[in-house]
Parts: sequence; structure tokens; C-alpha cells
Amino acid sequence: MKRRDFFTSGSLALLGTSLINPLSVTANNLQSRKEKTAKNIIFMVSDGMSTGTLNMASLLSQRRNGRQSNWIKLYRENMGRRALMDTSSSNALVTDSAAGSSAWGGGVKVPNGSLNVNADGSFNKPILQKFKQAGKSVGCVTTVSITHATPAGFCVNNKSRGDEYEIAGQYLDLKFDVMMGGGSKFFSKETRKDKVDLLEKYNTAGYTLVANRDEMNALSARTDKPVLGLYAQNGLPYTLDSMHDEALQKSVPTLAEMTQKTIEILSRNSKGFVMQVEGGKVDWAAHANDSAGLLYDQIAFDDAIKVALEFAANDKETLVIMTTDHGNGNPGLFGSDKDFDRIQHFKHTNDWILNGITNKFTTAQVIERIEAAQGYAIKAAEAQTLLSAYTKMDGDGLYNPYKLPFQQLAQIQSSYISVNWASMGHSGDFVELAAFGPGSELLMPFVKNTDLHELMLQASGVKSV
Amino acid sequence: MKRRDFFTSGSLALLGTSLINPLSVTANNLQSRKEKTAKNIIFMVSDGMSTGTLNMASLLSQRRNGRQSNWIKLYRENMGRRALMDTSSSNALVTDSAAGSSAWGGGVKVPNGSLNVNADGSFNKPILQKFKQAGKSVGCVTTVSITHATPAGFCVNNKSRGDEYEIAGQYLDLKFDVMMGGGSKFFSKETRKDKVDLLEKYNTAGYTLVANRDEMNALSARTDKPVLGLYAQNGLPYTLDSMHDEALQKSVPTLAEMTQKTIEILSRNSKGFVMQVEGGKVDWAAHANDSAGLLYDQIAFDDAIKVALEFAANDKETLVIMTTDHGNGNPGLFGSDKDFDRIQHFKHTNDWILNGITNKFTTAQVIERIEAAQGYAIKAAEAQTLLSAYTKMDGDGLYNPYKLPFQQLAQIQSSYISVNWASMGHSGDFVELAAFGPGSELLMPFVKNTDLHELMLQASGVKSV
Repeated sequence: MKRRDFFTSGSLALLGTSLINPLSVTANNLQSRKEKTAKNIIFMVSDGMSTGTLNMASLLSQRRNGRQSNWIKLYRENMGRRALMDTSSSNALVTDSAAGSSAWGGGVKVPNGSLNVNADGSFNKPILQKFKQAGKSVGCVTTVSITHATPAGFCVNNKSRGDEYEIAGQYLDLKFDVMMGGGSKFFSKETRKDKVDLLEKYNTAGYTLVANRDEMNALSARTDKPVLGLYAQNGLPYTLDSMHDEALQKSVPTLAEMTQKTIEILSRNSKGFVMQVEGGKVDWAAHANDSAGLLYDQIAFDDAIKVALEFAANDKETLVIMTTDHGNGNPGLFGSDKDFDRIQHFKHTNDWILNGITNKFTTAQVIERIEAAQGYAIKAAEAQTLLSAYTKMDGDGLYNPYKLPFQQLAQIQSSYISVNWASMGHSGDFVELAAFGPGSELLMPFVKNTDLHELMLQASGVKSV
Repeated sequence: MKRRDFFTSGSLALLGTSLINPLSVTANNLQSRKEKTAKNIIFMVSDGMSTGTLNMASLLSQRRNGRQSNWIKLYRENMGRRALMDTSSSNALVTDSAAGSSAWGGGVKVPNGSLNVNADGSFNKPILQKFKQAGKSVGCVTTVSITHATPAGFCVNNKSRGDEYEIAGQYLDLKFDVMMGGGSKFFSKETRKDKVDLLEKYNTAGYTLVANRDEMNALSARTDKPVLGLYAQNGLPYTLDSMHDEALQKSVPTLAEMTQKTIEILSRNSKGFVMQVEGGKVDWAAHANDSAGLLYDQIAFDDAIKVALEFAANDKETLVIMTTDHGNGNPGLFGSDKDFDRIQHFKHTNDWILNGITNKFTTAQVIERIEAAQGYAIKAAEAQTLLSAYTKMDGDGLYNPYKLPFQQLAQIQSSYISVNWASMGHSGDFVELAAFGPGSELLMPFVKNTDLHELMLQASGVKSV
């Protein structure tokens, strides 16, 4: 008897190699599209989230607060759909955030570093421009600069993600409804290289400008003016550091608060809204192998997930997508529960520790600072290893943050918390993706990052199938 | 207006905290159980498979052979169901393989190191004993010793996984239909500490003994005698090393070949069969941070997946489950495509390289050996680092393999192939699980490892819902 070859007949032939076929395979899906349209879309990105990050944040939440993450709870309730996602860019298996966001935002893989600009110089239209033209309200919130690659990939075309000063200017003309996060230095005349007062230009153009949590909270959901919220010069503080700093808590809103306020404003449009929510400092923490920075910011991202899912569960017309653009560092728990449980009692990140050390410190002071922040006493030789990185500091206390001994501290720390890291860079891992609400039925179990662009357009009916 | 709390009402209340509720939530599932029963189950374990292992093996297969892994293709065809699985044991977030297999095999989390024995000394009945009593044929195939923790967790109760000599004796009385893999040293009177000739006992008890690929191929599928196949003293050779060694290819069957032959034998039983297939050397390679050993053995495991899925697609009464017991090392691709592509042309593993070096080698000879095996020339200082690990060798050339410089070679290698590792041990990651065939509809998106025990019993109708 001749065997049927499982993989060369049947449904595979239907799939072929087309990127968008997975979104249009079944007649049932097409049928249901007419019944359920996603009026709204909330696209949530934990930037640089390796599997271990999702995993350890849920374990930390469970052991610290008695509840698994909202992301995992969604699965336990069997209420969302899951996919693995290929994250590669047009020129590399390992993407950067610009090409990663552009794949979703423009529907086309572009070279690393590019925002919706192809290798031949041609442009792919960013998805929030498409949705804005369709009459929807649109916006972005992030914990890093609002001009950073991930929000920018939904908004603009720019050959170089690095020119955040230019991107700050590009946003002006778009008049998107809400843009919130960090990055005021890219808008302010004091810090811009060209000394242009972009904030005044936004003001003149009719924007409402907000600069802290109270001002954000005071925003009326009834505003018809576009909102620009900038709560820090660069990235927002790490969640763990804010948790133990009342001044920061007062001045800087959480990602969940920004998400809540933005939904309130955007959802007044009867034609619906589309927004991106980025936990951007998850990626920064991963680049620094800063385990506590990473996990508490992942939990803060998860709090924003709860806001989005609660809105969607009530609204019933909102598609929520949550994913990451790429892995970063591939951290994992590689030791005892007892070590891991120390993280529950941390007061500050490695970032806070290292930025507060100067070349005037003694090893005893280094040990004391770490113990105060994280509850364990490192050895004198370990403290000396850290201190030796500070010998090249300028006399005035200014230094390049990238030369701080993040890697050394992570290696020392691993024997106390049992979290290890494979790298300080992005990985080529397939990543986790979940969807909830109308349109989630379009999601196939394995997708390319570019497939999400079509999925959003089809789910919302902005592009007919 | 009062908001409905997404996570404190509705379906969550149904779930509660019971472990088995996820398997019996919906009326539809219960209904479908009467329509489709899994007569057969093939449970496939890539031992110690972190997400990056699944991912990089598919990328390597795609770039080397022009096809994604069969595991990923199953998703692309939308033909399987996926879950994330919690892998913890009764006493740790990070499990070992004994507790991991026991969770599936006995349905209860046990302490690390234990095979279906609880902390209080009580036993949980191993699942292949249950299925054997239900009249089904049962068996295990693996690339490590057949007495190793993962097959043993489906077969026996033993407080200590480490006593493989004792486990070899425990198997004798079970008379399971097919047991195949490595580990002859645990059966042979020459290598057993007690000098008992277990092989003779198996022979006397009516087993057919096979010791190489030809003998395995000559086995009649019509045999009614139990089969014990032992193809190596300990673990089978790594796939990559076999690919470039004709003698090994002739003497040792691949995991896919063992799987095929075992299915042929077991499937003659009209009451069905249940078998476990383990890619056990994936875990060994991860413990050694041996990237090529890892990825080619993951691809060999994936070839066995194809055998299982093709059988199930034709048979239509077979549930195939594929997963891992825990992550290991959390490797990832962290650099250029070009570096990663070097692995396509490797001829031998790090294991082969290091086991062939002696303290008589010069640095030039070390460099030459690595270049011949893997195609790149390391620096003299790097070769010296490796050689320095050999100074403590015994004069007779015998040495403890665990003192070979695997970690150092992996670190040197990472600058040539861009694969990095977080650790040489197991991780606490949630892991990937896929199911295909009748019963797969019982799978929830997030499961505990112990849930799989109930799922197999319910899918097969051996335990009514």
C-alpha cells in the first residue's frame, strides 16, 4: 500500500510559499470575517522578549503576588490563539527593532536599521497612516523614547532608525491622536543639535503637550486635539526603580496607566482606533543582562495587557495582539527556587546600582550598595572587578553608560539569583504571539512577522480579503 | 458603568486550580471523545530542547536542505494543536529528566531524581504499565541508554534514576513489546557490577535480542516475542558523527529507523499501541554546549517526527504528542547568517573533537583537528586553552569525559558560528508542545506536565472521563 506523504500532499499544497495564504486558507475564516470585524486593534510589543522572559516574569508574579501573568492566564482560560513567529529581517535571521516593527508596520521585510524603507530605497506605507486615512484614531505608547524604532515602525518611513531627532519632526505632520512615552530630548531646543524648538511647533500645530503623570491624568478623554506626552528625556525609568522612588512614581505614569488613558481618548472615535503599546525597556534590560530590570518591566507590560484585555472583553470589537519583535539574551532560570526568590525582594535594578557607583567608591561601598539594592553581599574580589570598570571615568562624573560593567555584574549576580544569559544581543528565536478578540481566528500557528500586517488590515476590514 | 474584570469572572471561575479541569472543560470536547478515540499514542520527547534548539534546527534544515523542520511544517499546515507546558517537579522549578518523565508517566510531580516515587515513598503507576494492562502493545526507543530517566519514567518505579543497572533488571519482568536504544553496559555481565548476565536472562525469558542495525532490520514485524535492542554500550553516537562514519551508519540505526521498525511491530496489535520516542542526546549535547551535536540530533528527532506523523496521517487513530521535558542551556543564534551557515558543513561534533585530543597533541594539531571537523581555524592561544585541560590526563589515555573542555570550546566556537549558550544545565522555561490526531482537541494552550498523563488516558479511552 502506498503511503500518503504527510507533507507533500493535502493542505501543504494549498499553502505553497505565499506569505499571505495563511490568512486566507479556510472558507470558514472568510465567512466569519463578515460577522466579526475588529473595529479596534491594540498591538502590544514586549520588545526583546525571549521565551525565558515571558516565563520567569510569570513565575516571579506567581511567587511574589500569587498570580500568574495575564498573558499565561489568557492561555489557561483558553481564550486566545497562539502562534510562533519568524522574526527575520530582509538581510538577516537576527532582526533589529526597526526591521522588526517595519515587518508588522509596512508588511514587508526591510534591512536591519531601516524603518519601512526597502533596500532599493522604495517606501512601504506605515500601518497607522493607513488606519488614520481609513478614519480611525491612532496612537503609540512606549516606555522608551516615542521616536524609538518600534513605535516609529508603525508611523514613518526613514532609512535610518538612529536619527530620532528627524523622526521627532516626522511625527509633527502626521497628527496622530496620541503619542506617549520618553524622548523629550529629541523634541526640545535645548537638546536638539539643530536647536529647533519642536515642542513649540507641536504646540502651534494644535497638539496638547503633557510632561508628567498628573498632566496626563488631567487630560480629558473628550479632547479633539492630538496629544504628545513626553515623561523623560530618554527612556522612562525601570519599573523596579520607580517602585522604590516616590518622586518617580509621581512624575512618570506606568505603561498600564498610559495604555488606559490612551484607550479612553482613542475609543471615542465611532470609527474605531488602532494603537501600539511597547514595553521597550524590556529590551534595554536584556541588552544589559539586568534580570530584575527585565522581569519587573515585563510584569509592568503584563499589567498593560490586563488593561487591553479588559477593554476588549467588554468592548467585543477589539483585537488584541501581544508579541515581541525578537528574542534578546535568552535568559533562563538555571538553579534553585530559593535563589530565584531573592528577586522578589529587590529594590533596585543593576542599572540603578551601576549608575550610582563612582570611581571614588571603596569595595566596601560597592558591596553595601548592592546589598541595599538587592539583598545579598558580593565578595570583595567581585566588587573590585566592578570598580575596575570605573577607572576611566571623567573627572566630572560623566561617563558613557555603555561602558558600565553590566556584563560583569550579571555574571556575579547569577550565583545569587540563578538567572543566566546567553548574550547581550538579539537572538534569531521564533517568538511567542497571542491574539484575542475578533480577527484572532485568522491567526495561523506559525506566521512570519510580515503576516501580521495583512492580518490587521483584514481583521479590521480596512483591506477586504 | 461597571467593568467586567477579565480575569475574575467567566471562564476562569470554571477552571479553578484543579489540574485536570483543563481536560474536561467543554461539553464539545466530551462529545467528541465518543467519536474519536486514540487507539495508538506516539509520545515524542526531544530531551532538553530549549526554544532556540527547535528554532535553530529548523533554520539549519531550511538553509541546508531547503525545508523547514517537520515540527514547524505541522504548524504551517495548521494541522496540530500547540501548548506551552510548565515543567516543574515537586521540589523545584527546574526539573530533571526523571521527574519530568514521571510527571507524564505517573501523572504526579515527584522530586528530582525520582522515577514515579513520591517524597513519602509511595508509588505512581507508570503509564506504559497501565496501557499494557489495557491490552495494548507498548515500547520505548531512545538515542541514549534505554534505562535512562526519560524512558524509565514511562516504565518503572525507582527512587533513584541513577541506578541504571537495577532499572535494566526491572524491565525484564515487564515484558514490554519493544525496548530499543543504547545502554548495553547495564545488561552485560562484563560491565555489570554484580556480574549478572542480564542478557541471558532476557533471552531465557523469551526476548529477541538485537545488537545492530542489520539485526533490527531483519526483525519480523510479525514477531510475538518482546524485543530488546541495544546498539551501544551507553548513548548512541551523535547523528553528525555517524553521518561521516560509515561503520557507525552500518551498525547503529537512526532514531527514525528505530521508530519505523517499532511502529511496524507494535501496530499489529488490534487493540493498539503506545510508545515513547526520545531524542535523548539533544540533552547531552546541550549539557556540553555542543551546538552541532545538538542541532543535527534535533534534526534526527525531527526525522522521527515525520515517521510518526505519516503513520498517524494514514492510520487516523493515532495521537502524536511532541514536546520536551525541560529547556537546557537556552542557546540562540546571536550573530550573522554567514557564521551560522558554517554549521551546514561541519563533519563532526565538539564531542568527537575533544575525545580525540590527547595530552600529546601540539597546538597545531588541535587547530588542524578542529579545522578538519568544522572548517575554521582557531587561534593558537585558543588551542592552548583547550590543551591545558588535558594536562591532568592519566598516562594510559583514559580520562573523565566530564573534565573535557566543552565549555571552553563552545566559547571559542561562538565567535565562528554565532551560537551562544546561557548555561550547561536545565532551565525552568515553559516549553513547546504539539499534538496531532484524535485526542489533540483535549489540549489546552497552557498545561502542566502532569496534565499529559490524564490526556493520554482520556484520549485513548483507557480511563473514561
